[in-house]
Amino acid sequence: MVSVAIMGHGVVGSGVAEIITTHKNKLFNSVGEEIYIKKILDLREFPDSPLADRFTKSFDEILSDREIRIVVEVMGGTNPAYDYVKKCLLAGKSVVTSNKELVAKHGAELLAIAKEQNCNFLFEASVGGGIPIIRPMNQCLVANIVDEVAGILNGTTNFILTKMITDGMNFDDALKLAQDLGFAERNPEADVEGHDACRKICILASLAFGKHVYPEFVHTEGITKIALEDVKFAESYNSVIKLIGRVKRLEDGKLDIIVAPMMIPNSSQLANIDYEFNGIMVRGDCTGDVVFYGKGAGKLPTASAVVADVVDCVKHLKTRKYLFWTDGTDENIIPYTQSQTSMYIRVKSQNKDVAYSKAEEIFGNIKSIERDDVTNDVFAFVTPEMAYEDIEKKIQLLENDNINVLSQIRIGNL
Amino acid sequence: MVSVAIMGHGVVGSGVAEIITTHKNKLFNSVGEEIYIKKILDLREFPDSPLADRFTKSFDEILSDREIRIVVEVMGGTNPAYDYVKKCLLAGKSVVTSNKELVAKHGAELLAIAKEQNCNFLFEASVGGGIPIIRPMNQCLVANIVDEVAGILNGTTNFILTKMITDGMNFDDALKLAQDLGFAERNPEADVEGHDACRKICILASLAFGKHVYPEFVHTEGITKIALEDVKFAESYNSVIKLIGRVKRLEDGKLDIIVAPMMIPNSSQLANIDYEFNGIMVRGDCTGDVVFYGKGAGKLPTASAVVADVVDCVKHLKTRKYLFWTDGTDENIIPYTQSQTSMYIRVKSQNKDVAYSKAEEIFGNIKSIERDDVTNDVFAFVTPEMAYEDIEKKIQLLENDNINVLSQIRIGNL
Repeated sequence: MVSVAIMGHGVVGSGVAEIITTHKNKLFNSVGEEIYIKKILDLREFPDSPLADRFTKSFDEILSDREIRIVVEVMGGTNPAYDYVKKCLLAGKSVVTSNKELVAKHGAELLAIAKEQNCNFLFEASVGGGIPIIRPMNQCLVANIVDEVAGILNGTTNFILTKMITDGMNFDDALKLAQDLGFAERNPEADVEGHDACRKICILASLAFGKHVYPEFVHTEGITKIALEDVKFAESYNSVIKLIGRVKRLEDGKLDIIVAPMMIPNSSQLANIDYEFNGIMVRGDCTGDVVFYGKGAGKLPTASAVVADVVDCVKHLKTRKYLFWTDGTDENIIPYTQSQTSMYIRVKSQNKDVAYSKAEEIFGNIKSIERDDVTNDVFAFVTPEMAYEDIEKKIQLLENDNINVLSQIRIGNL
Repeated sequence: MVSVAIMGHGVVGSGVAEIITTHKNKLFNSVGEEIYIKKILDLREFPDSPLADRFTKSFDEILSDREIRIVVEVMGGTNPAYDYVKKCLLAGKSVVTSNKELVAKHGAELLAIAKEQNCNFLFEASVGGGIPIIRPMNQCLVANIVDEVAGILNGTTNFILTKMITDGMNFDDALKLAQDLGFAERNPEADVEGHDACRKICILASLAFGKHVYPEFVHTEGITKIALEDVKFAESYNSVIKLIGRVKRLEDGKLDIIVAPMMIPNSSQLANIDYEFNGIMVRGDCTGDVVFYGKGAGKLPTASAVVADVVDCVKHLKTRKYLFWTDGTDENIIPYTQSQTSMYIRVKSQNKDVAYSKAEEIFGNIKSIERDDVTNDVFAFVTPEMAYEDIEKKIQLLENDNINVLSQIRIGNL
């Protein structure tokens, strides 16, 4: 019997308790002994829970219990999660977490402590919910040099964008629907501004390239400015707009990393990932593109990933899993202004023909996107690939010529 | 330093040698010691290979070399692979293989020997080439009860079907193109008749449900009878025809397993998996649907999966990986005639209206598939769901009424 503690009894935490209870036999067969929930930390009372006798409000009770070898952290946020997790690891307890904020902010430090203490710090559930991604990247792709990781990493924004694309809803209505259906929080900022996706691509980048990438290193744009007009122009360009987290290694070894809405071609494996689903593409030098798809959030998908990590901890109580990266600085990352991209640009101008010629003069070989159902003063085009800062300068030139730039979205060739 | 031997220096074997050589540093960082190719078994001569001095024609040299702890089997076929692998495992050497025929035919026995000898028998590369699937299923989904596994498991047939769908090529021309491009063998039977896909779904079914499913238990249909007409009717039904290997667990615990071409809706995550790519959907009770996508074959993708297994063996030279299933019989599997399905049926009849009424009378609530560009004597419909044997009886009734059934393809609700 292996004793575990669960810190937090919210959506994911109660799911973890549920799976460990309902899948008892399956888990026993996998690890050869019982996984026993000895303590559950939560400030609230759960008198009707079948595990009511295991609840505690005292973290110290868990920390000081030498029988508890594995601690599950599913509280979310970094305070007090960071402090608690650090103390558990320092006490030699393995920790499993679904907390992407914690891993994105403190992963390198916590991994280093785990290594020193010869215990495990695992976080499969922190990215992609129930989709196996951390472990396959770490193990199955060990014989690959990863060149790029890109994905739809946030189900809330993907749900909103899908509703805009398939039902022609505008952003505000789609967000409200997502909130009504429970896919979006009342305060949706972390999702719609891209912060959640940013934490996840930071974790994947750190894992793929071996050095911690902190969220503040990553240029992050959300989807609040996406207009229905852009969605329709994307359709005419055989593309869809998705919020993409992407990191690629450049030839000089530096990383080009960003979170931003992108127009990706319908032929991309990420284009058909709709609604609350997530999809992650890992490009290896040997495997080529491998894509993982599934529900990126939700009680049981996320909890099942946590439990899989718990199982892995049970199997590796003595031998440590090799999951590690070192600390990193922003010297390893190019400024987003230097990142090469081509850009979709939608403009408004009294004289369309003159404006188009002007755009061609400024940007070079642009591709016009044709649509019948737009007013005579609006058109859109795609620029050649160039540094983002050059695009910004050229957009300024357009504006100087009284050509009003209504929106710009990066082209993602995924 | 860990010494390994590679048996077979064909496409995959030479890829394994190449990756171990070119990714030396990355592998060293993963396992903390050098992976050294001590012997390569092949009857042919490779005087120009940088590893020329490691080649041997004698299996006994490998078997008797106690320094060789891990043996890679990439010869293909079961003779002599089965004999060699068994002897290696009995000698306590861990074995990694990409050989699906070997695993599908002898997996249970070889896993039992590995367990007894406390060594590993791993075969990530046997299904899905470079796509991580065996390990994620075994580990990440450990907290799930798997209900269904379905996939496009053969790149050759998927390439042919994609060419039929997107370019309107007929089967023979698409096959010839696949052969010219090296995607299909000169003797394409194992691919086009579904035997290769069958071996792979057997491996996945054995892993998911814990008992060995032998290929001879599985009703297998290939794609040689698929006509362009059917491809077009599928399009009108918002579907595509794919060769699907599928296994699901019924309520009584028995398995419903089949390999057959199916019409799957365009909205399915498997519908957009085209050309030589593979995709595998695993439906878990907690995760919901998880899909894995990538190149299902090819030198480096497959070899990278083999090397990942080698790395896992190196890390687990003392502690065995828990990957196991027991022997199985066909009592665990329902006859394919009892499997419930709805069916696309294309018929020819002098009097279309009468024939349609007759079909409705026989099958009940059928759905007609409308197309403008067919001759007046041909139509197609989809039946309600019923046992396959009932569909066959009803088709006989149609034929008795001089309604000529030209083709039938299962509907796959994936």
